[in-house]
Amino acid sequence: MIKMVLIRHGQSIWNLENRFTGWTDVDLSEQGLREARQAGRILAKNGFVFDRAYTSVLKRAIRTLWIILDEMNLMWIPVAKSWMLNERHYGALQGLNKAETAAQYGEEQVQLWRRSVSVRPPQLDMKDDRYEAADPRYKDLKEGEFPLTENLEDTEERVLKYWHETIVPVLREGQRVIISAHGNTLRALVKYLDNIPADGIVGLNIPTGVPLVYELDEDLRPIRHYYLGIDGELPEGTVSASL
Amino acid sequence: MIKMVLIRHGQSIWNLENRFTGWTDVDLSEQGLREARQAGRILAKNGFVFDRAYTSVLKRAIRTLWIILDEMNLMWIPVAKSWMLNERHYGALQGLNKAETAAQYGEEQVQLWRRSVSVRPPQLDMKDDRYEAADPRYKDLKEGEFPLTENLEDTEERVLKYWHETIVPVLREGQRVIISAHGNTLRALVKYLDNIPADGIVGLNIPTGVPLVYELDEDLRPIRHYYLGIDGELPEGTVSASL
Repeated sequence: MIKMVLIRHGQSIWNLENRFTGWTDVDLSEQGLREARQAGRILAKNGFVFDRAYTSVLKRAIRTLWIILDEMNLMWIPVAKSWMLNERHYGALQGLNKAETAAQYGEEQVQLWRRSVSVRPPQLDMKDDRYEAADPRYKDLKEGEFPLTENLEDTEERVLKYWHETIVPVLREGQRVIISAHGNTLRALVKYLDNIPADGIVGLNIPTGVPLVYELDEDLRPIRHYYLGIDGELPEGTVSASL
Repeated sequence: MIKMVLIRHGQSIWNLENRFTGWTDVDLSEQGLREARQAGRILAKNGFVFDRAYTSVLKRAIRTLWIILDEMNLMWIPVAKSWMLNERHYGALQGLNKAETAAQYGEEQVQLWRRSVSVRPPQLDMKDDRYEAADPRYKDLKEGEFPLTENLEDTEERVLKYWHETIVPVLREGQRVIISAHGNTLRALVKYLDNIPADGIVGLNIPTGVPLVYELDEDLRPIRHYYLGIDGELPEGTVSASL
């Protein structure tokens, strides 16, 4: 039986300010730092050990991972970072306040942008300062690969490419893996692993900073999964029935 | 012209307690944390950027690197960790107080153990708790590769193997590199780069937490090197004339 841990980064400053983040490189809030430390302690206390870690190129996910590895005395394990594990690109909404956006476009439209599988937010203009294709962390992206906006399916496509090409071979070797990533990256992966239909994923929210343990059979099919939290401390309603 | 930065980890708790450390996984002291932050700020302020980083599997070097990358907004760059960049193995002296050891064996003997190229400290017994060959971070070492003690030449051999096999090809690609490592690891590398004879290396001490910049020609021969410190803040006598 293969055990794998997924973790959404701790609360970020823009989670706290209720702003769309996407690929903007926002740091953890004080609460996010605490969540990450607690996640590391819970994992260590429950006997988890990792041989290898994966994360995005965004600091809120990297810092969450670093704090967890520090708490687990595993700072020395190899860590791979890839833009393919970045949060969903939120297009022209990046940086906007969610409530203000709802007031302007309507709550229903915002919920579609946030939760729908196929609807894309308005795309970013390539002249916009938020279009970061020139940032050195994205230098390996081919022309046209840097997204101007993404729906969940777009995110899923790159996440699953990374999953199959990079993570699966390592899991098959028996290595114990943790993936520190983002709300929509993990929703995309969970949707694939548990074969959740498009209409089942809309209501699925993964809480920040709580380890999500997947037990997989040797063909990497999920046997079961659970959040590793302190009883009563899990955000209400986050462990979806469809999960 | 190729620029490369070497940095010895910030002060560790055992540097502070004046104990032989070697492969013992001791953390940074408060001063060591400050040194690392300052190193990162100085590098950022002086326009340094790195594409790739190398460090040991010991947390004092990894944490120094993490703090530097954080200060430089470069948390996303690839980091490779290897036991080949670990501090010199100090054998049966690991954990002992340097002054007490000098009282027992004489100052001259301790200086030989510390600074000589060819003298090895007493070797560790394989039944000693400090013999960590079973530690998972050393699982890739072949039988007999885990050291019981090392002189500087032993350390130099593995450091240069890593240098030639792993770092040189990356430097030749034009990638900008930082190496966060240990006093004797870096002495070994400096000895090689600057072709310092055995009797020239005895007096060479590399200060903790101060970036040491090497400018190399296209054949990776040193053109010049200098410490990047705040004027007047470099530990006296640390920039050796032979350097």
